[in-house]
Amino acid sequence: MTSQTTEDLRRRNLSRVLTLLHEEGARSRAELTREVGLSRSTMAGVVAELIGLGLVTESTPALTGGAGRPSGVVRLAEDVVAVAVNPEVDAVHVGLVGLGGRVVKHVRIETPDTEVATVVGLAAATVRGMLAGDSARVLGLGLAIPGQVRIGDGVVRQATHLGWSEVPIVDEVTKATGLRSWAANAATLAMRAESRFGAGKGVADLVYLIGGASGVGGGAVVAGQLLTGAAGYAGEFGHTVVRPGGARCHCGAAGCLEAEVDQATLLAAVGLDAADAGRLGRELTERLAGRGDEDPDSALAGLVEELAGLLAVAVRNAVNVLNPQAIVLSGFLAALRDAAPVDLVGDAVASIREGVEVRDAALGEEQLMIGAAELVWAELLADPAGFLLGG
Amino acid sequence: MTSQTTEDLRRRNLSRVLTLLHEEGARSRAELTREVGLSRSTMAGVVAELIGLGLVTESTPALTGGAGRPSGVVRLAEDVVAVAVNPEVDAVHVGLVGLGGRVVKHVRIETPDTEVATVVGLAAATVRGMLAGDSARVLGLGLAIPGQVRIGDGVVRQATHLGWSEVPIVDEVTKATGLRSWAANAATLAMRAESRFGAGKGVADLVYLIGGASGVGGGAVVAGQLLTGAAGYAGEFGHTVVRPGGARCHCGAAGCLEAEVDQATLLAAVGLDAADAGRLGRELTERLAGRGDEDPDSALAGLVEELAGLLAVAVRNAVNVLNPQAIVLSGFLAALRDAAPVDLVGDAVASIREGVEVRDAALGEEQLMIGAAELVWAELLADPAGFLLGG
Repeated sequence: MTSQTTEDLRRRNLSRVLTLLHEEGARSRAELTREVGLSRSTMAGVVAELIGLGLVTESTPALTGGAGRPSGVVRLAEDVVAVAVNPEVDAVHVGLVGLGGRVVKHVRIETPDTEVATVVGLAAATVRGMLAGDSARVLGLGLAIPGQVRIGDGVVRQATHLGWSEVPIVDEVTKATGLRSWAANAATLAMRAESRFGAGKGVADLVYLIGGASGVGGGAVVAGQLLTGAAGYAGEFGHTVVRPGGARCHCGAAGCLEAEVDQATLLAAVGLDAADAGRLGRELTERLAGRGDEDPDSALAGLVEELAGLLAVAVRNAVNVLNPQAIVLSGFLAALRDAAPVDLVGDAVASIREGVEVRDAALGEEQLMIGAAELVWAELLADPAGFLLGG
Repeated sequence: MTSQTTEDLRRRNLSRVLTLLHEEGARSRAELTREVGLSRSTMAGVVAELIGLGLVTESTPALTGGAGRPSGVVRLAEDVVAVAVNPEVDAVHVGLVGLGGRVVKHVRIETPDTEVATVVGLAAATVRGMLAGDSARVLGLGLAIPGQVRIGDGVVRQATHLGWSEVPIVDEVTKATGLRSWAANAATLAMRAESRFGAGKGVADLVYLIGGASGVGGGAVVAGQLLTGAAGYAGEFGHTVVRPGGARCHCGAAGCLEAEVDQATLLAAVGLDAADAGRLGRELTERLAGRGDEDPDSALAGLVEELAGLLAVAVRNAVNVLNPQAIVLSGFLAALRDAAPVDLVGDAVASIREGVEVRDAALGEEQLMIGAAELVWAELLADPAGFLLGG
């Protein structure tokens, strides 16, 4: 073997072991050795190097009376974090997320406007505040943007809800925070979080739809790989047509899922504020069943059925085109589905729909923080030593 | 290196060289050496082995007065063929296709019915007839089926236009012909042909839509890989919704592209028979322009615009979800697009549509023969010696 090959192998082993710990959590060195399929001595070297890089710790094995060498438990280092930033129409979310998708801190800062300078300034100030007096070791910053982000340079092409167009957000944020930064579409990052740690874990062909204040987004995993498309804009299920010639959409077209099925309509129907969107599901279910001595709300039932029918058009199209194993719904789309007695995949082609399962997302409000941090972790996991040592 | 690794490397080199010749055509040994990046002596061994397997030939180099060793031209062997079979609603197409996607023979056999036994019997008889007295070396048989075919065992789950359900077609055809056989959805095979040799060549993110007598099918290439979905049924763009609550479709749902935009309607509008579908494009264009001293046909113009508008809904959805570099249209969908003054991607999200090009398919009626043969060539190319020697 050439030394190049040895070096490749070493890098790959570091990557595989750290990725396994990131995805599956702490385990004994003996288990790691078995699962990754390395020799005991090679694994000892890999773990020692990861400890040296400050990425994992290994507990001293307890003394046992049994035979064989006891094996220490290898864990992800708790002080290693990524910053996660998610600008929305009315607020900026900022968080610290550890390896393994562990959310350490998460705040929502209301913003007077969505000007780029305002948002970047608020985010940078919040990050400084979060890190003041904190011993965390920050490895980078991930941005979840509600809009189209170009792969490669992290330029926001369009984020219509923020009023952004052609914004070099990665450059701006790097300048303001001094942190290495990456950006991607928020919905695809939420999907990455669910795909790695939540309702889509282990699913090789997955469709994900998320609905929130900023509309409907989505993403897909195809044959185990994130669907990006030619330039990184794939997965805009929110802009698939559910009613040709229907409501005018932010994107300029008409009848898009996002224009026809929106959170504000549902919130208004049950008298909730945007800040209470998290209670939408329970509120819908209770009103449709009839609360206390109230009658079931039949007008609401009609609205829910109509919107669920429109959602079903988008879901059916996604199923027929992508033949996924699972559809994961998040945000108000999950609330809508839970409240509506509609089979979202009932109209898909028979042999395609038989294998598909519709599920609610599992990670709740932390999806986007976890997903944004994945941008940093993806870089680290690909080459842990190279990332940290710049090698 | 272990001998396992050496064996892997040898197999990979055979595969790479034969694949290059299959995709790009004949070239000198010197060019092959450069393009594949092997040493001259390794390439000499690879070419010798491919010659030994009867898969390529090498011409004797012409004597030249110049310096350096002259290099012979390496070509695909002309006698190596795959059988291609494509059952349709009214006929069975049978062909012989050489390596490199070269169609050697192709006949269309009208069939009294689409019973499995009838179709298999006709196909087997035609193959025997084609091969009688022919010195071709047949390596296998590929079936292009207008319906959902399960990857793995080649069972046709549903082919509604043929009236087939749960048909183990690969077993049936293998029994009837004695040839190793593979089957897949016809539209995805047509796309594989266009992707490898036609309008989609070199396009890593591609959407393909084909319209014919058996409806509308499609397929996609995602990040350079064929989109299959979890079970092999992906790409059913013909069953995406273009008019919710619209015309009843064979699939059981309503408003599918295939139910709303069909070849028969267009043929009837211009007075053509199904057998003359190839003339549809010219006929539409001439009538819309006004032929001789006829006025332009304004009723036809209305129909064409309506159908193109419905096609645009499906195309817009595909573009917004898959962010392709190119959309390739084939069959009557290409004729429709050429005749209609409609921008099929005009309503897609701005940053997504800017990079996309809409093209007509390039391989014409041989698409399906070439695509069906690709099923055999994919097996051969992955491991040429193993395929032929059963090793």
